[in-house]
Amino acid sequence: MNYRIREEIKNMKRYVAGKPISEVKRELGIETVVKMASNENPFGASPMVKEAILRTCEDVSLYPDSGSFGLRQELSQMTGRPMEEIFVGGGSDSLIKVISSTMLSRGDEIIMGEHSFSRYEDNAKLMGAVVVKTDMEKLVLNLDAMEKAITEKTKIIYLCNPNNPTGSSFGKADFEAFIAKVSSDILVIMDEAYREYVTREDYFDALEYLDDHKNLIVLRTFSKAYGMAGLRVGYGFADPELVGYFYRVVDPFDVNLFAQEAAVAALRDQAFLKEVIERNTEGKHFFYRELEKMGLPFVVSDTNFILWDTKKDDMEIFRRLMKKGYIIRPGGFLGIPGHIRVTISTMENNRGFMKAYKEVLKEMETGK
Amino acid sequence: MNYRIREEIKNMKRYVAGKPISEVKRELGIETVVKMASNENPFGASPMVKEAILRTCEDVSLYPDSGSFGLRQELSQMTGRPMEEIFVGGGSDSLIKVISSTMLSRGDEIIMGEHSFSRYEDNAKLMGAVVVKTDMEKLVLNLDAMEKAITEKTKIIYLCNPNNPTGSSFGKADFEAFIAKVSSDILVIMDEAYREYVTREDYFDALEYLDDHKNLIVLRTFSKAYGMAGLRVGYGFADPELVGYFYRVVDPFDVNLFAQEAAVAALRDQAFLKEVIERNTEGKHFFYRELEKMGLPFVVSDTNFILWDTKKDDMEIFRRLMKKGYIIRPGGFLGIPGHIRVTISTMENNRGFMKAYKEVLKEMETGK
Repeated sequence: MNYRIREEIKNMKRYVAGKPISEVKRELGIETVVKMASNENPFGASPMVKEAILRTCEDVSLYPDSGSFGLRQELSQMTGRPMEEIFVGGGSDSLIKVISSTMLSRGDEIIMGEHSFSRYEDNAKLMGAVVVKTDMEKLVLNLDAMEKAITEKTKIIYLCNPNNPTGSSFGKADFEAFIAKVSSDILVIMDEAYREYVTREDYFDALEYLDDHKNLIVLRTFSKAYGMAGLRVGYGFADPELVGYFYRVVDPFDVNLFAQEAAVAALRDQAFLKEVIERNTEGKHFFYRELEKMGLPFVVSDTNFILWDTKKDDMEIFRRLMKKGYIIRPGGFLGIPGHIRVTISTMENNRGFMKAYKEVLKEMETGK
Repeated sequence: MNYRIREEIKNMKRYVAGKPISEVKRELGIETVVKMASNENPFGASPMVKEAILRTCEDVSLYPDSGSFGLRQELSQMTGRPMEEIFVGGGSDSLIKVISSTMLSRGDEIIMGEHSFSRYEDNAKLMGAVVVKTDMEKLVLNLDAMEKAITEKTKIIYLCNPNNPTGSSFGKADFEAFIAKVSSDILVIMDEAYREYVTREDYFDALEYLDDHKNLIVLRTFSKAYGMAGLRVGYGFADPELVGYFYRVVDPFDVNLFAQEAAVAALRDQAFLKEVIERNTEGKHFFYRELEKMGLPFVVSDTNFILWDTKKDDMEIFRRLMKKGYIIRPGGFLGIPGHIRVTISTMENNRGFMKAYKEVLKEMETGK
């Protein structure tokens, strides 16, 4: 057909998500499948989240509050930032799209790391913007390179900290040096989807820089440590003038009713969050020890996943692991061939994975 | 601040949703508030929807299936249309935005009725497109006028059938005459959000025209008769080539996990749907009788709301009704001054509203 599709769309590809468990079961006819591909929280969500969902069932036929009043109020109380600085959307995905739609026209530029969250690129291309990717030696964001890549056309710089899909992070001193050098008419977006997992000592609270840097936007999410990926809710902080523009663009009912209620409940159960982080850190050190024993170089992680160099064909490892019931994210899908990214799970799953991985390596060596 | 916002955004306004019950309670200090403003289903959702939500709680930490496989399969079985023709999004709102983002660039035109769903306009403007609105004599879509408004720049024509916010609809003969005249490179979008409520005898199944008209897109939703506005899920049918483009644009996790599971459950309880429609029709005839007695002209409705000419100041009626605990949609918000739009509710609420409305009219006459 002679559809008059926008040129930008013709050059785009569909996002490839981690395979759902149901799909792998369907395709391979396996009963037990463990997904360690999408950095979902293996410890689920707080019991208070479930209570909130049950409570909300009675109101399923009502539209959600388009202003997310209750959730923004709770976030404001927790962070000490005014409600006017807070915006909420259907996951970080939605917030990134809203920011792109607000800011970017054809020919504008964004800067992002070579191996960073792919949705920055997709949403920039959707608006016809040019994506400038900076080198990531050792799979760590290079803030100097990002600053050097700035041109007159740069409108947005994405700092994913900790960075997905590599797991690396940067500390306070590097950030302060960077933000001081960026012109105030360029938006610096700190995507902190994994911030709750950070263990490095010189990590910092980006919200403290909002007052002095009106071009700073901080994005956070309930999809990772809060264990609510299924409900879709992310939040951000920005200058109230920017928030006003974003609310013109976001769909009025972007954050569903259950997500709003559940997110408030999740924020109130910080004990659950603490346990999630402790168990994740335990799992992370298990992976560190195992990979060190095997002599495989990994990226030090401040997230709930770990990326390493398999020194082998990652796509083959991916396929062989899947047959054993473990779904992981191969570097081939992430533009980092040879590597695999594995979600840190329960210790049972971590050990089960490591056993299966070693079997796969043996099979590949013996050519089975 | 010198933010470099897109020009399109500067000219947009934020969508004004119907006031949430909680907000009215907060502002006016009233205990009991009945919302008849947003065409929410007063009979809630099927008990099977609630069961599906409870069942899904265990998986709250998992990302939803980005392909909505189970839901699309169920919709395919119910309608007899192939899965490749079906796309799903976070409500009709999201689908309209996706179609706009796929098709519209600066200077392109869309055609819509003068009093039709405002999100067509918002999403077109977001892409820099020009919105051509056609005259709606008697508050009914004028398909002849829409056809005459076509230019070389027209990319989309929105047919809201039944039409929100007027409640009117058109029948099979008018549609067939219209679609035959529209060039195949212009998308005709049939927004059927209220289709389940239709009682006119010459209504038709738009899906039957998909094979012969590859430029036809049909949108439907779970937010109205299925009573799932709080969960956010709408669906559409289009040529698979178009569906492929839409899936490049839509956020991969736009339809949350609970919405997908609940929608499948809702489709399987057609008995609930039947009861909703019967009770709505009963309420509709109650309104017809009352308004006829009062001599107030109303638009014959094929929806779960009714719009009429109050012959008074609708904003004043709106404010006075709110003080009595009834939230309705004043024509002043809809570009139809003098009119009010009221959601058909339970018979108890319908009678309660009518009593309050008559009190308001008396107060206004006596100048109280």
